[in-house]
Order: sequence, then C-alpha cells, then structure tokens
Amino acid sequence: MGMPVEFNTMIVTKGKEERIEENIFRLEKEGYRIYPLDIPMDVRKTKFGEKSGTAEVQKLEWSNGRTGITYKLTSLHSTN
Amino acid sequence: MGMPVEFNTMIVTKGKEERIEENIFRLEKEGYRIYPLDIPMDVRKTKFGEKSGTAEVQKLEWSNGRTGITYKLTSLHSTN
Amino acid sequence: MGMPVEFNTMIVTKGKEERIEENIFRLEKEGYRIYPLDIPMDVRKTKFGEKSGTAEVQKLEWSNGRTGITYKLTSLHSTN
Amino acid sequence: MGMPVEFNTMIVTKGKEERIEENIFRLEKEGYRIYPLDIPMDVRKTKFGEKSGTAEVQKLEWSNGRTGITYKLTSLHSTN
Repeated sequence: MGMPVEFNTMIVTKGKEERIEENIFRLEKEGYRIYPLDIPMDVRKTKFGEKSGTAEVQKLEWSNGRTGITYKLTSLHSTN
Repeated sequence: MGMPVEFNTMIVTKGKEERIEENIFRLEKEGYRIYPLDIPMDVRKTKFGEKSGTAEVQKLEWSNGRTGITYKLTSLHSTN
Repeated sequence: MGMPVEFNTMIVTKGKEERIEENIFRLEKEGYRIYPLDIPMDVRKTKFGEKSGTAEVQKLEWSNGRTGITYKLTSLHSTN
Repeated sequence: MGMPVEFNTMIVTKGKEERIEENIFRLEKEGYRIYPLDIPMDVRKTKFGEKSGTAEVQKLEWSNGRTGITYKLTSLHSTN
C-alpha cells in the first residue's frame, strides 16, 4: 500500500539527457524520485564518476512510474 | 537550504479543479506536495467537509513553487 | 546515491506490534518509511485485510535501514 | 490535512549539537525533516557559512513536531 520514492541529492545523467534549450536539459528516470528544486546540485555522468557540472532542477514530473527531471546547467566542470 | 514538501493523503479541491477529459481533472496548488499515485484516495471540496468522491492521482508536476495534480475521479459520493 | 523511502497511508501490523503501554504500540519495519504523524489512520493486520482499528502515529525512528513506528490506537474496529 | 516535511541535503548545526560519543553528535530541530542516512554530507555551523566538516546521519527521530538527528562526524574541515 506504500509508495516507494527515492530522494536524490545529485543528478546522474548516464548520458540520457536531452537538450531542450541552450542550457536546459530533460532526463527521464524509472520510479518516483525527489530532487530538491531550485538548489545548486552536482551533475555526474555516472554514479561514481567525476562531477561534470552544476545544475538546478526546475521541474519534476511524476507519472506512470517514471520521473521527468528538467534542469538548468549553470556551470560545466572542465577537467583539463 | 531545505526544501519544504507537504505529504497529502486526500485531495481537497476547494472547487478549483479543471476538467481535462470526462473523468480526468487537474488541480494546481501552492507549494510542493506529494500525493500517493495510482492509489484510491478521498476527494473533498473543503478540508473538513464531506467526502465528495474517490480518485487516483495519475500525474504530479512540481515547478515554480507549485504542484499540478492530475487525477481520475473513479467514483462520486452522492449524499442524497 | 539516492535514498529509497516508502510513503504509507495506513499501518499494516502483520501481528508484529508490541504493546508499550495501554493503547500505545510499537512496530518495526524494514526500510525507511514515512507515515503522517498525529493524523488518524487505518490499522490493518494484513495489507488486503479488514480494518482493525484507527491509530495516530506518535513517533518515527529511522536507523540501520529500519523504521520504528510508535502509535496510539484510538479505536478498535469490531467486526461482530 | 497535509504533513509538512523538509528535505535537507546538509546539516546546519547553529552550534546546538550535543556530543554523544567521541565523534557522534545529536541535534534537535523544529519540524519534521528528512536527511539522507548513511551518506556523506556537509556540516556547516550556519546556513551560509563555511563547511565545517563531513558527517553521516545515523538516526532520525520524529515526534512532537521535532526531529532528532544523530550523526557521525567523519572529517573536520580545517580552514587554517
């Protein structure tokens, strides 16, 4: 009877993000997930990988067992 | 730094719902709110009023400090 | 990196509750779970069973991947 | 009818922590708050202050409108 939800404190893209606008991206994930909105958060390509940038989540959508995450990339972390 | 969220276990419409389709409605509320999805839930017009029906939330959208709730009314509670 | 949490809208005891005081009980469950506090909620012995009473959760404790739920049984649902 | 909860992604002590054991501290806060458990998290003395260390939350307790947070300080951030 319970509803499982996952709290997340960073965005892990796994390279599945879609560019919506210049620095706005959208990502879809399995399950219902909560990311703090409007707060700077680390972005990584893989869970244990390097930080690739900083973003703020602008929108979360839950339906059909999936979460849509729209985020604004505010800075890129270059590793050169 | 924290993000306030409100857990809700029933839908209180305050008469602000919009009909999207036959038995599908959408409601917008201030703040970020969690309603269990895909679970039968009471619908009321006012917080302390009578139950007006039963619904299942199909979609939640969080953005700009507001929550959009799309629900399917599965039964109406007639009080005659 | 995410933390799974389960939202619950009723208490399912599976007969594992321990009586702490007269009408105060404590139940331990696997995983991290959220129950609304200080709100009347249905109590059932099994997920799909009959309602056995009404309770209010007074305390939640999360540690070591488990949730402790202390609740006050406010009414018993007799089925005679 | 909703229950407000605050998601937190860092520990802000405001100097109100109590030492329980060597590197174990306990903090009490107003309201019901969620901190990810068993995950390294920044500790700050004030919301906009410098990071003072890293900790992992070991236990959360919710009751009477308050949250008890027990955390293990895993590293101290010296600013010399």
